[in-house]
Order: sequence, then C-alpha cells, then structure tokens
Amino acid sequence: MNDFFNPESVAIFGSTKPKKVAYEILRNILEGGYEGKIYLINPRGGSVFNLKVCSSLDEVKDKIDLAVVAVPAGLVKGVLEESVQKGIKAAIIITSGFSEVGDKEAEEDIIKLAKERGVRIIGPNCAGLFNTFHNFFPTIEMRMPRGNLSFIAQSGAFGGAVLAWAEDKGIGMSKFVSYGNRCDVDEADLIEHLNNDDTTKVIMVYIEGLREGQKFLRAAKASKKPIIAIKAGKSESGRRSVSSHTAALAGRDEIYQGAFDQAGIIRVSDIEELFDLAQSFAYYLEGLPRGNKIVIVTNSGGPGVMVADKCEELDLYLPEPTAELKQKLQDFLSPICSLKNPIDLTAQATSQEYKKVIELVAEEYDAVLVICIPPMFVGSKEIAEGVVEARKRVKKPVLVSFMAGKLVEDGIRLFEQNNVHNFETGERAARALAGLIRYGKRKR
Amino acid sequence: MNDFFNPESVAIFGSTKPKKVAYEILRNILEGGYEGKIYLINPRGGSVFNLKVCSSLDEVKDKIDLAVVAVPAGLVKGVLEESVQKGIKAAIIITSGFSEVGDKEAEEDIIKLAKERGVRIIGPNCAGLFNTFHNFFPTIEMRMPRGNLSFIAQSGAFGGAVLAWAEDKGIGMSKFVSYGNRCDVDEADLIEHLNNDDTTKVIMVYIEGLREGQKFLRAAKASKKPIIAIKAGKSESGRRSVSSHTAALAGRDEIYQGAFDQAGIIRVSDIEELFDLAQSFAYYLEGLPRGNKIVIVTNSGGPGVMVADKCEELDLYLPEPTAELKQKLQDFLSPICSLKNPIDLTAQATSQEYKKVIELVAEEYDAVLVICIPPMFVGSKEIAEGVVEARKRVKKPVLVSFMAGKLVEDGIRLFEQNNVHNFETGERAARALAGLIRYGKRKR
Repeated sequence: MNDFFNPESVAIFGSTKPKKVAYEILRNILEGGYEGKIYLINPRGGSVFNLKVCSSLDEVKDKIDLAVVAVPAGLVKGVLEESVQKGIKAAIIITSGFSEVGDKEAEEDIIKLAKERGVRIIGPNCAGLFNTFHNFFPTIEMRMPRGNLSFIAQSGAFGGAVLAWAEDKGIGMSKFVSYGNRCDVDEADLIEHLNNDDTTKVIMVYIEGLREGQKFLRAAKASKKPIIAIKAGKSESGRRSVSSHTAALAGRDEIYQGAFDQAGIIRVSDIEELFDLAQSFAYYLEGLPRGNKIVIVTNSGGPGVMVADKCEELDLYLPEPTAELKQKLQDFLSPICSLKNPIDLTAQATSQEYKKVIELVAEEYDAVLVICIPPMFVGSKEIAEGVVEARKRVKKPVLVSFMAGKLVEDGIRLFEQNNVHNFETGERAARALAGLIRYGKRKR
Repeated sequence: MNDFFNPESVAIFGSTKPKKVAYEILRNILEGGYEGKIYLINPRGGSVFNLKVCSSLDEVKDKIDLAVVAVPAGLVKGVLEESVQKGIKAAIIITSGFSEVGDKEAEEDIIKLAKERGVRIIGPNCAGLFNTFHNFFPTIEMRMPRGNLSFIAQSGAFGGAVLAWAEDKGIGMSKFVSYGNRCDVDEADLIEHLNNDDTTKVIMVYIEGLREGQKFLRAAKASKKPIIAIKAGKSESGRRSVSSHTAALAGRDEIYQGAFDQAGIIRVSDIEELFDLAQSFAYYLEGLPRGNKIVIVTNSGGPGVMVADKCEELDLYLPEPTAELKQKLQDFLSPICSLKNPIDLTAQATSQEYKKVIELVAEEYDAVLVICIPPMFVGSKEIAEGVVEARKRVKKPVLVSFMAGKLVEDGIRLFEQNNVHNFETGERAARALAGLIRYGKRKR
C-alpha cells in the first residue's frame, strides 16, 4: 500500500492534451511539488510541461513504484500488463466504463490480472488520491493544505465536493482516496493503512455500499483511530437509486447501522456534521470525555437555553452544580449570575470570570460547552483569551461557540492560533460533543 | 407603532461619552444616514458629533415623535414624564435593571404611566430597533443592509448574534426589534405591525416565553406572512434556566408547540435553519408547493441519495416518474442516466439537460430539488445558467444546492444575480423545502 501514497517514481498513462485526465493529473502532481520521478507514457510521444513523453514503459530505465492509468477503458488491460512486466506493484485506474456501466467482464479481467501478478489496484472509475505529506497529488481533485484528517470516498464527485467544502472552511487534510469500483483495494484496506499512518488522526469515510461487510467490520474494529462515516441510502428511494449507481448493493439500512454500532463507527448525516466531528476528534482525542455529564457556560441566557435544549435531545446530562461548587462560584461572581446549568455569567462576564468558571466547573463535569456573544464595547478577543488559558489548564474537552460573524472575528483568530476550534453555533458544538462522548464510551 | 419605525424626529436621553449607550446609539443613528431631526438630551449640556446637547426637552422647540431612553434605571421614570409632557407617544427604553433583576415595582410604575398617558413603550432592558428603509438605527446592535426579512427578538444579545450571522452571510433585513422585558409593546403588537409592513416578507421571531399567549396566537393566526420562530426552553434544564432569565415563564413545551401548530408558526431549532427557511420563504412565497411530491435532479449519485434520505426523514414523498415522463426523459438523455427518483444525470450532464429535465419534471411534481457537483473542466456557471433559465419558466419551487466552495463560486454568483438561493448542502435545501410545504399546507 505504501507505493500508492509514498512512491519514489510514478508513470502516468494517457493523453497529453490539456483538459484531458492524464494531462490534468500530471499538472496536479507537478504543481503539488512532488519530488519523485515522473514519467508520462503515450504512444504518440512528444513532450509536455518540459517533460519528454515516453512512447512506452520500455523507454523508462528506472524502477517505477506506481502506475496512474487514464487511458480509454479498452486499453486498460494492456497498460496493466505492460506495467506488470516492468515490475510495478501498484496501479490507480482512473478510467471509467467498467462494472458501473455494466461491463463486469472487463473488470473481472483486471481483477484476475491483479491477483495473479500481485499488483494492487485502486479503482477503476475513481478520482485518484493524494498524500499532502509526500506532496503527491495523482488526482483530478483539488490540492489541499496539510492537516490531520484523512478521507476515503467511494464516489469521486462527492469526494471532490467534500474537499472543496473543507478548503472553503480552511481545513487541511493528510490523505484522500477516491476508490470507485474498488475492484481490488477496498475500504477495509484503506482503513487499515490509515490506521498505521502517523499523519492521520481521524479517518472519514463516505460509502454507498459495502462488498465485504465482515472484512470492513474487522478493519474498523481494529482501528485505533476514530472513524466517522457518511453512508447514503437510508431511505427507500435512496436505496433504489444506490443500487443503480457504482454497482454497489445498498442493503438494508438497519444492518449497516448495527454493524457501525458494533465497530464503533460514528455515523453522520451530512458534510457539516462530518467536519464538525472530525475536527473535534482531532482536537480532543487525547482527552475524551469520560461520561455525559456536561455543563454550559454562557454570557447570554437565550443561546445557553437553546444549547441546553439541543444537549438534552442528544441525551447529554446537565445537572445543576453541587452546592459546594455553587458556593465557590458565588464567591467571585455577581449575584445576578445564574448558577444553574446553563451557568449564565450575564453580559457583564469578564475574560477572567470565564477562565475561573471553566476551570472550576471542569472539576465536576465531563466536558464544558462555552457559549459567548461578546457584549458591546468588549472585544471578542479579550474574552477568548480567558477561554484559551482555561482550555490549556483543563484536561477535559472544552468546546467553544463564539457568535457571530464579524462580532467574533478577532476571538476566532486567537482560537485558531491556540488550537481551539470555534463552532458556528452552540448546537453544532453540542452535536460534536455528543459524538466525542459516544466514541469515548466505546473506547472504555 | 409607526412612530417607532418612521419617526420624523427623535430625542435620545443619556450619556454623551464615547462607549456609553446613548452616545453609541446616536453614532449609529448618524452613521446610518437618518434624515429626521435628532436631539441628545443630557442635563450637563455640551456638544457631541457637532450636535448641541440639550439640557432638557424644554430646550427643544420642535415636535418629537420618539424618545430613546438610556439613562440609569432610577431616572427612567422622570425622563418618561418629561417626554409625556412634551407630547411624545413612543419610547424605547434601553436601560436595564427592572423586572429582570427583580425590581418589578419600578417596571410597574412605567407601565402605569404608559397606560395613563397613552405612550407606547418598547423595553426596558432591550437593545433597540432599526428600520433599514427609513435609514433609522436607534440600537446598540450593528447596522444592516436592506432586505425583506424582519426579526423580533426578546433577548438583545441573541438578537445581535443573529444580525452578525446574517451580515456574515450577506443577508439583508427590513426591521429588527429587541423588545426585552416588553412592559408594553409585545410580540403580538410587533407581529401585527410587521404584517402590515410593505417591506417585510417574512417575520422571524425569537421568544423565550410568552406573557399573553392568546393575544400572541391571535396575531400569529391573522398574519398573512410566514412567521418562523425560535423558541428556547424545550428541555428541563433549559426551562430551569429560562425562568431565571428575562423574567419570562417558559411553560411546558408541548403547550407552545401546540399553539405554534395551531397558528401556523414554523418552529426551527437554530440560527442556520432560521435563515435557510426565511430566505426560502422570501424567494418562494409566490409559488408555494401544493403538495409534498418532490423530485431530486442530480449529476452525482451519492449526494442525490443523501438528499433522498433526508427528504424521507422529513416526510417528503419521492415517487418514481411516471412511465410517460420517463419516456420523455429517455428521448434526449443518455442511457446511463438513472430515471428513478433521484434522477441522476451523471457527471456528463450539460446545462441544457438540467434545464430541460427541470422543466419536464416540474409538470409532475410539486417541487424540484436540484443538486450539482460541477464535473471537472466544466464551470459551475455554465450549468447554473440552465438552472436559472428553468427556474424562470417553472412556476413551482426549484431549490438548488451546488457544492462546494470554490468549485461553485461562479455559479453561485450567477444565482445571486437571478434571485436563486444556493443552499450549502442538499440536506439544508430539503429541510427548507419541508418548511415551505408545511406552510403551504396551512395556507390552503
């Protein structure tokens, strides 16, 4: 599998014309700053991007670690045979036109070849992959900055949309794989690989259907890292449609849900929740909540209550502070503060009050949800400073939602510099916290 | 009520020092471009922003339509009496320190005065209001561009966060009112006023608790415009907290929910849903869906299925097209397209195909959900053009989600120029559509 993500040399098969797949992949690899050797193979020869095009692999003297295949479907088998001759052990087949359009035979041929000759294949009908930590982007999707999330996607288009979404939100990635028809390498293989990948903290998965359920479950159960999955096809019309797409069998949703629960996979229902959770895991993996007893600290009653509503909907437990803790809080807070849960510090809350309160309540609760609407004439950055300090001292999750827009720009910048993720709404923070708790429970 | 929103002259009572409330409100009014007459009243006199400060209302010769009061709580009654003497019929009391901190007596005094002397009061303990169509911003909150949504909020802080959120998303507003302790003017009065306001298409409400439930219900029932409400306090801990905040009685949630249903109020659970729905209403009010039979048109299988899942969760009905419609579609679509529901045009879908398909399916369904992930090498703008054209011809709701980030920037710009709202995810579009259907059902 290492040849896919960290090859020292790569051969790309396909057209040398702009806007054609092989050309665009070559461009992506070059612009991404790949430091290994690159060969473009096309019988017509010529040159592109100052690279001489080889008319066949015979012209290449060096060892090749990876083949990227973007030739027409009818030529794929021949290219694979040529690659095998050359000793290549890993191939990404971008080309579509196999089982997904009904041509199972052509795909069987490839599978047979791969098995007999010991070549691992990703695809066909996929969008490629990338490894930001190897500056390696053999994909038709966009390049991304480095980060500690990795993402594997059955559907190339959706994978691309997820990347574009992440980029829009300033989120980085470690590895991305679009695996298409997974004639050989499947979800389970990729999860296993990412599980041993130092730069991946959280594994995100988009699947439409599984082929080998047991293998997938084994890999997921063995994972030391959180796996967050989007699985489409809950609904009747959804399943009807899935079965006609990527040649996958959707299966009954209850079976999937049961399997996910067994394997400790956290299932989410859209991109927004996917990233809210993934980012939370990346930040809080070292200090997962030990239970569901949480406290809300706010400077505004209404939003505090709305988040409390959401928390109870998510089965989080919000008891009032003990008399002892209330006494400690009363000692320095104004009498107009509400010391129930949510704890409402009122609009007069200072940065130091936030800090002290968070540190104190963390002793009694499993996690703290901090809500803040900066009051007039007090910068969000000032209050954020207190939260950042408390966050550093407290060994439990402190999830934060400062609202909103330009009112909190400065505060959010400070958070980013200090590895604190700001949720756009408190409800989204609560949802992410519930995910952390579910995962923490499984880990115990 | 007109004096609150369209006064020809306003008197502001309070401090003339920067960062103090009266000063900041004056600044907001001046910077907002208010064209009426402005008087700042403070016994110390002096001048601020090149305006002479009057030591009392006696110095003012003109008629005054509205008083904005931001003096300390102990002085509010006196200021009101002075205003009444001058013939002022409307006052916004920003000052806090009344029933919300337990001083019910002081608030009763104000209420008595208001009733006896025929003055309408907004507040106390509120953040003021604005009317963008009168360039009038007597508030401590931010100014906003014009739009056709209006928003009334019990909590000032949350109101401010909502405005900042809207501004961040480029959404405009018509009117905003933070009504705080509502010692006189309440939700019902404001809904009634907005219902007759030409520049308001959708009324958004944030309430923590009602005082006069029947009056509110009557106003809501009589509303010709959609009312979207956020009501905090569903949960036990939420209610515990609400009762200690803004002196409101939260009451049992089922009672509220029942009342909302009766009055046709659409309840949402967070800011994101609030605006998704409000914007949808603003766009589709003239052509509400007549039923819940909807169709999804996509160029990518996975996202289409995810949206179908969401639709079924929301009780939307997604039957397959009739044989007749399928035939019409087959006539011009590639055989690899899936003609179930979702209709998957595949990555090869062209702008014209989107256009023709949307127009055709709209004949058979109550609404169309259009999903698009622009394929490589095809600009999102090109496909968006077809959608915009179809949207113009079709008299039913066509909700759109092009994904994501920079992949669709150009397409979204075109949508904005043509009054098409793009939802960040198809799931959010489905949720908004479900809201439109619920409202449409009530209207029939």
